[in-house]
Amino acid sequence: MADAAAAARERHARLAKPPGSLGRLEELGARLAGIAGTCPPPRPDPAALVVFAGDHGVHARGVTPWPQSITASVAAAIAGGGGGAAVLARSVGASVEVVDVGIAGPTPAGVLDRKVRPGTRDLAAEPAMTGGECRAAVEVGAERAAAAVAAGARVLLCGEVGIANTTPSAAVIAAVTGRPAAEVTGRGSGVDDPTLARKIAVVEAAVARRPADALAALGGLELAALVGFVREGARLGVPVVLDGVITLAAALVAGVPDGCVASHLPVEPGGRVALDALGLEPLLDLDLRLGEGTGALLALPLLRAAADVLRDMATLDEL
Amino acid sequence: MADAAAAARERHARLAKPPGSLGRLEELGARLAGIAGTCPPPRPDPAALVVFAGDHGVHARGVTPWPQSITASVAAAIAGGGGGAAVLARSVGASVEVVDVGIAGPTPAGVLDRKVRPGTRDLAAEPAMTGGECRAAVEVGAERAAAAVAAGARVLLCGEVGIANTTPSAAVIAAVTGRPAAEVTGRGSGVDDPTLARKIAVVEAAVARRPADALAALGGLELAALVGFVREGARLGVPVVLDGVITLAAALVAGVPDGCVASHLPVEPGGRVALDALGLEPLLDLDLRLGEGTGALLALPLLRAAADVLRDMATLDEL
Repeated sequence: MADAAAAARERHARLAKPPGSLGRLEELGARLAGIAGTCPPPRPDPAALVVFAGDHGVHARGVTPWPQSITASVAAAIAGGGGGAAVLARSVGASVEVVDVGIAGPTPAGVLDRKVRPGTRDLAAEPAMTGGECRAAVEVGAERAAAAVAAGARVLLCGEVGIANTTPSAAVIAAVTGRPAAEVTGRGSGVDDPTLARKIAVVEAAVARRPADALAALGGLELAALVGFVREGARLGVPVVLDGVITLAAALVAGVPDGCVASHLPVEPGGRVALDALGLEPLLDLDLRLGEGTGALLALPLLRAAADVLRDMATLDEL
Repeated sequence: MADAAAAARERHARLAKPPGSLGRLEELGARLAGIAGTCPPPRPDPAALVVFAGDHGVHARGVTPWPQSITASVAAAIAGGGGGAAVLARSVGASVEVVDVGIAGPTPAGVLDRKVRPGTRDLAAEPAMTGGECRAAVEVGAERAAAAVAAGARVLLCGEVGIANTTPSAAVIAAVTGRPAAEVTGRGSGVDDPTLARKIAVVEAAVARRPADALAALGGLELAALVGFVREGARLGVPVVLDGVITLAAALVAGVPDGCVASHLPVEPGGRVALDALGLEPLLDLDLRLGEGTGALLALPLLRAAADVLRDMATLDEL
């Protein structure tokens, strides 16, 4: 891996441009070469976005103004082509699969049913998942990554839907990094001050219990699925493009940052904390806080461009 | 224009997502709607990059280590498909035209000959162009914008090639904004400290002459062509995507920032000064300093995404 990244840097120095003048696109090309183990790296195409959907027992604590049923509605909208991630996937050229790993109600039409259980338990009161449930959700994520790569995908994009899921992601980030709840907990979809205070208190209390298995105790089913998805993508040598704060929390647990690309800096404050802990610098900073994989999709053309430059650009010698 | 932008903001508030959760992509959509005068705005596609090439008399002052002949070589490489802009244009889906508006030698194969003169005069000693030469170059730019739109382009991308042209662009930015030379002059393709000191001294002395026509006295032929290109694109109601510091200097002179989109924050310090004076915030910050339109090309998928969201995304009511 390091050899291919070094070869990419060496090739960049010989391309028909002032050395370093393509800035972070050059670093990105070297990262893609490192992940693939070859230079130039394969074009990250076809691209497969997998959106994991799940509900959260902690919703009952009033950590968000949105009704829980929105999880199923948004999952259905993405599967139906009108959701934000579906629109952006068509815009940039990526496939989309929506996977129910834990929606509280029935699996919506067009959504793949891999439901482990109908929503997590309330992490403020008890572990959100049993170890077995958590492992089952991780396994769903790994299975979908492997299926996408088997179907031809050469880049995997992470997405999620889950009303209230900035609360478990903040808890996981706080538990893994040791940072205080107030520093990693934000307004999610845009909550008011009293709701934010409730969120912080919930995260603080849950993390203070110091669970042995932070992912099971504090996470979500879609978050656990993302852990498996990221790990399996990295294992298969396919770049995994992270999205917002929930996917970054999953990447922290997955522990394979060298296989990942950070697409954007989330508005949610835990995003920066998780990125720093992962040692990743995001490509975009567009004040995004929608999730669904929308930031990963917006960054995808940059990955393709980085690979195309290494493959197709003339060298100074050829000039 | 303001009506269509307001309609876009109103539509964004009704789309199936938390209000504002697509961040700067929502602002970009409103800007595109404002430029087109309709909401949703037309998809910015087909996309046409026009790269203007010119040489600079000030090259003789030792403001860059690159030989002047590189201008023609890079113009030829882009026209031939192996230059950076050509590779990225294929990657994101844009056409490329390279226009010789002032290359010192013969027009390279594949490059459109609109040469006004073979390079400018030395701006450190005398006006770089006569008023007539400058107007002729501006007219070339306007003609190519009109031709691209007549051929179907629905978005115009600015590019340039011209060894030494960060010196005239710094001079134009200093003259237009009144900021000191040292604040707007940078290392361009990567010059050393003595060269940078020479550049700053050249810019300082040239601006101190307080020319009545800053563009003619201090600019370049490709910079002047870009002024015409930006103005004509804005007049035709087609979004004009700016690139690096030379295109930003041209946009300052063109004076139609509402018709423009800033693609990226250049490394060159005059870039931030020009962006602030234009009231534009760039979409990307990737440490780019290649020019050629490469930053504009990398931002193009974001423009398409912003338009696609406004046209295709489901509303909360539909959910």
